Amino acid sequence: MTHQDELKKLVGEEAVKFIENNTVVGLGTGSTVKFMVDALGKRVKDEGLSIIGVPTSERTKQQANSLGIITKGIDEVDHIDLTIDGADQIDKNFQGIKGGGGAHLWEKIVAINSDKNMWIVDESKMADHLGSFPLPLEVIPYGSQQLFKRLKDKGYSPEFRIKDGHHVKTDSDNDIIDLHLHEIDHPQEIANTLDHMTGIVEHGLFLDIVNTVIVGHEDGPEVLHAR
Amino acid sequence: MTHQDELKKLVGEEAVKFIENNTVVGLGTGSTVKFMVDALGKRVKDEGLSIIGVPTSERTKQQANSLGIITKGIDEVDHIDLTIDGADQIDKNFQGIKGGGGAHLWEKIVAINSDKNMWIVDESKMADHLGSFPLPLEVIPYGSQQLFKRLKDKGYSPEFRIKDGHHVKTDSDNDIIDLHLHEIDHPQEIANTLDHMTGIVEHGLFLDIVNTVIVGHEDGPEVLHAR
Repeated sequence: MTHQDELKKLVGEEAVKFIENNTVVGLGTGSTVKFMVDALGKRVKDEGLSIIGVPTSERTKQQANSLGIITKGIDEVDHIDLTIDGADQIDKNFQGIKGGGGAHLWEKIVAINSDKNMWIVDESKMADHLGSFPLPLEVIPYGSQQLFKRLKDKGYSPEFRIKDGHHVKTDSDNDIIDLHLHEIDHPQEIANTLDHMTGIVEHGLFLDIVNTVIVGHEDGPEVLHAR
Repeated sequence: MTHQDELKKLVGEEAVKFIENNTVVGLGTGSTVKFMVDALGKRVKDEGLSIIGVPTSERTKQQANSLGIITKGIDEVDHIDLTIDGADQIDKNFQGIKGGGGAHLWEKIVAINSDKNMWIVDESKMADHLGSFPLPLEVIPYGSQQLFKRLKDKGYSPEFRIKDGHHVKTDSDNDIIDLHLHEIDHPQEIANTLDHMTGIVEHGLFLDIVNTVIVGHEDGPEVLHAR
């Protein structure tokens, strides 16, 4: 295991301490989350912890099930008590960007249906301002070239996400456009503009959503209470 | 031909008088639009009118092509000069509801990329207030039951659109929820609320979009200039 993986493992182990018995837990996706799910599986096995997991991806679902964690779909539960997920960038006001993995639509749907949200990240994800990480948009393929022009005219420096010469597709079979904004001074303002644009299914700004952030530092995990 | 169809035919014939040579024309979908496309085909054939049609559905595309009208996709044209489409309800301020046919997402994408928009309707579609026609939402299937609860809690009286026991699917493979609002006093306000809700791809409120409305009355078509 690399040193970075060791730090992620410590963060994942710290995160699962917050999970209470008989709760519904949203399970995000990503490399740090993977260690968290491993640690959760251990608690289920060793302590007989009884929880239901709501995974945000097929990958997390398979991992959880292989560890004996019972999972249900988002529409099969009444509510979610706590969701633990990663983030691509978090600013000093605990606003975030997600969607580097292209899953921010489903992740946001799980997040807004959760009583509490926790993000687990390594310290490289923490920033004064959002924007150096490109802002992902999930967009409807029909008319996406027109939307692209519109975003370009606004000065948002859009770029279709391409892999092997093809548009990357989301789990909902849409395209992804990344906005290279460099520095986002007013996240609420740009979120508002993007919310109103036809053809954008969802943007990767997660505002006023996270309650707790666990950051992996060299000297161990740090727990930050956001709101 | 029924009497109502005769009125729709007159409206369609009136609408195509507004189409200029060498323009790009958005072609909507619906029973009145069908007569308009017939009349457009006649102008192309009889007058040698040169236009490019941008259809909002496969059905309209096939009809247009069968009449010798050249069509292109929304992302194959630089811009659209005029789009002619139907509407499900139009209020006294020329705000509209569309989506009774479940195609409002693509129709809105075409509309917002058009320099001018014209709606062609029979007089039963004109109302003082919007809302007696249910407001359609195109929604992401993932988490749609949670979204439904959220809409219900807001008092919007949501109802999944069902046919033959299955959720009706849009061209983008999403679900449709109809809101039974009865009377919408402030369309901008509800549009704003819906724009911000995660999981809603697009609502059927078309606000500040239409420039010209042609209404079919017993005594012939009436042309109204909206904005």
